[in-house]
Order: sequence, then structure tokens, then C-alpha cells
Amino acid sequence: MSKVYVVGVGMSNVGRFYERSLRDLAAEALFKAIDDSGNLTPEYVVVSNMLSSQAEQENLASLIADYCGLRGSSGFKVEAACGSGGAAVLVGYSLVASGLAKVVAVVGVEKLSERTTPEVARGLAYAADADFELPYGISFSGLNALVMRYYMMKYNVKREEMSAWPVLMHENGYYNPYAHLRMRITVDDVIKSPVIADPIRLLDSCPISDGAAAVILTSEELARKYNDTPVLIAGIGNALDSTDISSRYELDTFLASKLSAERAFKLAKLSPKDVDVAELHDAYSINGVVTLEDVGFAPKGMGAKLVAEGRFRIGDKPVINPSGGLKSRGHPVGATGVYQVCEVVMQLRGDFPGVKVGGEVGLTQNIGGVGSNITTIILRR
Amino acid sequence: MSKVYVVGVGMSNVGRFYERSLRDLAAEALFKAIDDSGNLTPEYVVVSNMLSSQAEQENLASLIADYCGLRGSSGFKVEAACGSGGAAVLVGYSLVASGLAKVVAVVGVEKLSERTTPEVARGLAYAADADFELPYGISFSGLNALVMRYYMMKYNVKREEMSAWPVLMHENGYYNPYAHLRMRITVDDVIKSPVIADPIRLLDSCPISDGAAAVILTSEELARKYNDTPVLIAGIGNALDSTDISSRYELDTFLASKLSAERAFKLAKLSPKDVDVAELHDAYSINGVVTLEDVGFAPKGMGAKLVAEGRFRIGDKPVINPSGGLKSRGHPVGATGVYQVCEVVMQLRGDFPGVKVGGEVGLTQNIGGVGSNITTIILRR
Repeated sequence: MSKVYVVGVGMSNVGRFYERSLRDLAAEALFKAIDDSGNLTPEYVVVSNMLSSQAEQENLASLIADYCGLRGSSGFKVEAACGSGGAAVLVGYSLVASGLAKVVAVVGVEKLSERTTPEVARGLAYAADADFELPYGISFSGLNALVMRYYMMKYNVKREEMSAWPVLMHENGYYNPYAHLRMRITVDDVIKSPVIADPIRLLDSCPISDGAAAVILTSEELARKYNDTPVLIAGIGNALDSTDISSRYELDTFLASKLSAERAFKLAKLSPKDVDVAELHDAYSINGVVTLEDVGFAPKGMGAKLVAEGRFRIGDKPVINPSGGLKSRGHPVGATGVYQVCEVVMQLRGDFPGVKVGGEVGLTQNIGGVGSNITTIILRR
Repeated sequence: MSKVYVVGVGMSNVGRFYERSLRDLAAEALFKAIDDSGNLTPEYVVVSNMLSSQAEQENLASLIADYCGLRGSSGFKVEAACGSGGAAVLVGYSLVASGLAKVVAVVGVEKLSERTTPEVARGLAYAADADFELPYGISFSGLNALVMRYYMMKYNVKREEMSAWPVLMHENGYYNPYAHLRMRITVDDVIKSPVIADPIRLLDSCPISDGAAAVILTSEELARKYNDTPVLIAGIGNALDSTDISSRYELDTFLASKLSAERAFKLAKLSPKDVDVAELHDAYSINGVVTLEDVGFAPKGMGAKLVAEGRFRIGDKPVINPSGGLKSRGHPVGATGVYQVCEVVMQLRGDFPGVKVGGEVGLTQNIGGVGSNITTIILRR
């Protein structure tokens, strides 16, 4: 298999941009990434997005490519709910590795601020099973709350221990100039914040954000020619679980997290202990904790406890979510997986403008649904 | 680049199936394709679909894979409006060619019959520009009508000549057991049918259909081992044009049709004159005629006239749309591009159960939007 490198990254700020359009955000990220790559021209524009249909817009590859002066290039949208970004990077990887393209841009974008909170909540639930889950009136937060309740009960995890996750995220995100919520919080703040879906509280939950991120992928030959700091995609893997959680074998573990990580590590010929820095998908505190364990960074049932004991912060190995994660950086749904790749690439290059980790090996894991579609990517300097 | 073969095809009937669900249709096609492949197990399930969001369902790869007993496999959705199917086959091709997967299923599915006609019309317009076209009140039919009006004026094409296209489609589709509209029509029927968006009439328009189609793609090694009749994907190419038609350089030609065909022919080292059988995307008569020219089967301005003179039917080279095309087989939106590949593969294998062409080289072209996202695939026995 041919080697594939990330040679350019670009991000818009994450937040609520009432005055900006989807294509405007996408263009900012794409132009920054092209510029960062040494001005490579993408042959493919692969777009990741989940909910533009709510704004009556599909066909985004054509829309964004044309807006950015790339009429005549190739492209399409990749969707895997909140895991769209990671899946799109996997597609970009395969386009380069197959030889179909030499230069591929993957652009993740989501623009939700013009919608009401109920509309967004409804849209996010498209990731669940519309025939066999949603008719019972459960929300996406409600589904994750079931996982959190079960996990806390099974492993005797205290509310204070679960709260350490969002506190660490905000500590990291405070230094990230791209982050949506740049504020410090305490365990007490989390525990006193309003209940969203018991036991999930407001400060367990990521904000829903606008934002766009882009990466430029290319072959080894071009990577070395145009770029001084190419970062290798050493491993990549995706896995699917059931859409509905009622038919899962286990609720406190995500099969797709384990499988996708195993596939990525196998391809990279690396293991969890080699990872210096990781960006995990913490749409809710419980997702961060469960995937910390499923990827192999913590023993089962110990994720929240270890974070509460002070692990996974700067100086430790691995450092988790120096960006602030979904909790603080924010969650521009279909773009999140691409943000993660941008952030880890910048960590390995040493130019991330927030909490700096450095290191040689990084990992991203991006989740769609309640663990139903997960992509893990391993990056190496 | 490694060679990629189609070793299994499967289709549901095309029509309106009020009693069936999206996953049920997808499962029928996928199981048929797996069976046809000699029981290969897909590592990836790539789904193409445009409008399941209207039924509050995304995350289709997880939904369909789990329903078909493929929990733990990999996958995601690929969307390129009505061109989703062709784009998804391209992604499946790259997954196999890159070595990321040995066996990939591409499943196109669309289920629209539970929606009203205005809802479907609104959904199809998601392929157009929601910011700069739709606010003016134009429909997807209206946009194509502008192309048809301009084409007929520029090349002095008579209404009778344009009508030869749908008559030929229904002549072919009459023999296709999978087709949605199995009835013969005359030029007079077309001319007397109601106006949809002047000059497009009802019998210039494809029906909107439910349906699912699947293909199993694999490497050369496995293709030869498990299958007596593998069909090679000799060439494949995608191209993007502007989403809005107001900024096009030309209205009577689709840049993306030309570019994607050129890319596919280049990869295949073949030319239009080598093609024995083609399935083109005739959502409206005008699309069929324009792409007949842009792919290279007819000189510019001569497409409709040549069809009216009796060209492109059985005995000619190439034979166009022996399935009946979108006009008669129907247009299960995100599945159409996969149907085309199934049909051409069966033609080359000699087991298509309708109008039989045979031959060695086949072509499919699948269009998203008003020519804004087009994938061309060249198949070889």
C-alpha cells in the first residue's frame, strides 16, 4: 500500500457564526490548508458533513469546490453522523493510496447556528435508529445517558470522578485559540450544572458548533517535494456497530472503538503505548471515558478514575485532547474528525497554538452515533 | 494501481413499495449481490443515498450493515445528490485498489414512497444551490427545463426529435423485469403529455422510485478464485461543475460529463467507439441527449436527432440504456448509479433479463444535480 501524508491543515475558529455561510467556513479552512501544503492543487474535494440537509443543501462537494475555484475537480460528500470527518479522511487516504489521485483535500464543515436547539437535537438523532429508537421519544443525549448510568453503576464510578473529564478538557481548551468554549471550570461547576438527561449534566456535554477544518493528503513523492514537515498516516481503521443501542452486547464498551483502533494499530505496526498525543471524541464525558479504555489507554472501568487522579495531562503519555476535545474546542458535527487530524498533525509538527505536547506518534478517534460508526487514525512524524 | 473487479450484483425491483423499509430494500440487494459473488463477506459496506434525512435517518452504513449481519465491518455513506451511486462505486473501487480492503459492498438505496410529491421535489432541489438558486422559486425540473429550452433553440431540435428518447427508453424498459414503468409509449403520447416545466413534459421525466442495488468489488486474486465471470472496472472518473447553473460557461453541454468520461477512458485506455453498451442518466430526456454527446457517442447538437433516426438501439454500437434508463427503469435517486453498474455488468456477462446486448465494453454515467457531480465507469468483460 502506498504511503499517504498529511501536508496541509487549516481550520476556522469553532463557535457560532450567525453571519457566515457553510461555504464561507469551508473556504477558509480549505484555503488555509492549501496554503499550508505549499500550494498543492487538490484533484479531489471530499466533504464531510452531517446536517446540511436541514438547510435544504446537499451536493456539497460541487458547492464548495466551485466556490473555491476548483471547478472541474472531483469529489463527493462522506457521511457517518458525528463520525463523518474521520470517515472522510479514510476515503481521502484510499484515493491517494490507490493511485486514483495524487492530491486530495478533505474538508469537514458544519453550520448549525441558524437552527433552533430542538432542530439541532432532532438532527443529531438522525444518527440513531429512526424506526426502532426514536419513536420511543429518546434523544441522542438520552441514549448516551443510558451508557453513562450503566457505566457508573457497573464500575462504581463517582460523580466527582466523571467530572474530572470536562474539567481537564476546559483546562486544555482554555489555551486553544480555535476553541468554542475557552473558560475554566471546576468539579463543583460540573456537579451543580443543570441536568440534560440524567446523569448527563450541561457541563458533561459538548457545545454544538459551527466550524470547518481541512487537510491536504498526498503521496510520498509529492509530500517530500513540497513540504518540510509531512506527517504520515501510519494507520487508519473504521468499524461499525449496531445503530440502535438496545441490541448491543455491552453498553459500557464500544465494539467499534476497539475494532477501529485495532485495525489502525495493526496497519501502523504500533500499539497504544506508542502514542504520545490523542484526540478522542467526548461529545459527552462518558464517551471520552469509554473510548479512553476501548482504545487501550486505560484498563476497563478505570478511565474516569485515572483522569481524576491526574493522568493524561501535559507531561503524561499519552496526553489526551490538548485541544480541549469536543467539550471545550467544540463539536462542529461533520467537521470534528477533521479538526482532530489537524490538531494532532500540528502537535507532531510542533506548531499547535495551544497546549503543546510534541511527540512522534498521535492518534485520533471520531465517533458517529452512540459508538455505531468509529474511525481511528494514527499519525506519525 | 491494483485491478478491481465486480464479482456480484443484486437489485430489488424499482417501484413504489409502501410496505417496505429502506433497510429491507437494501438487504434484498446486498444479499443477492453477496450470493452472486460466491458468498464473499464484505469488509466494507459503502452506502449511497440522497434523501434518507427527510425520514430522519442518517448513519445508514451502520444501519444496513447491522441489519444484514455485518456488525463489525466498516463503512459510511457517500452522497453526491442523484449521482451518489456512481460516486460510491468510485469510493469502493479506491478501497480495493488501495489495498485497504479486499472485499467491498457498495449498496445504493432510496425509499421515497412515503413522502408527498412536493416533499420529494423539495428534496431533489437540495442538489441545487440553496442560497443562490432556490430562493428564486425554481424547481429541479425548472432548472433542467432551462437547459432543454436552450439546447432545442441552439441546435434547432424539434419537439418530435426530443420525444424519440423517452419512446426508446420505454421500448427497452418494457422487457426489464426490474423496471418501474413497463409500458410502451409513442411520440404522440410524449407530445400530448402534461407540461411539468416547459418544455419538459411528463413523459420527458423519470419517475421517482424506491429501490436498492448492490455490487461486490474485489481484488484480482479473489475475483479469479471465487467467480467465473468477474467484470473489470477498467476505468473510473468523477468531475464537479458549479452547483448553480447561472455561472456555467455553457448550458447545452455538461463539463463534468466530458471530464469524468475523459478520466475514465484515459484510465481504461479506451475510447467512446470501443463501447458496446452504456447506461446514461436520463432524469429528463434532455439529460440523456446532452450526455450522449458529452460522453462522445454523438456530435454536439445531434444526440436527439440520431435517436430519432433510429440509432442506439439493439444492433447498433453502442446500445444506450437497454434497461430502459431512468425514464422507464426508474430513478431510485441515490441507488441509480449502482443499478447502472449492475445492469452493465449483467449485459457483459450475458445474464441481463431484459434487452440483451452482450459485447465486451460497457459504460455507465451517473449525474448529480444539473450536471454538477458526474461519475463515469467503464466496465470490461
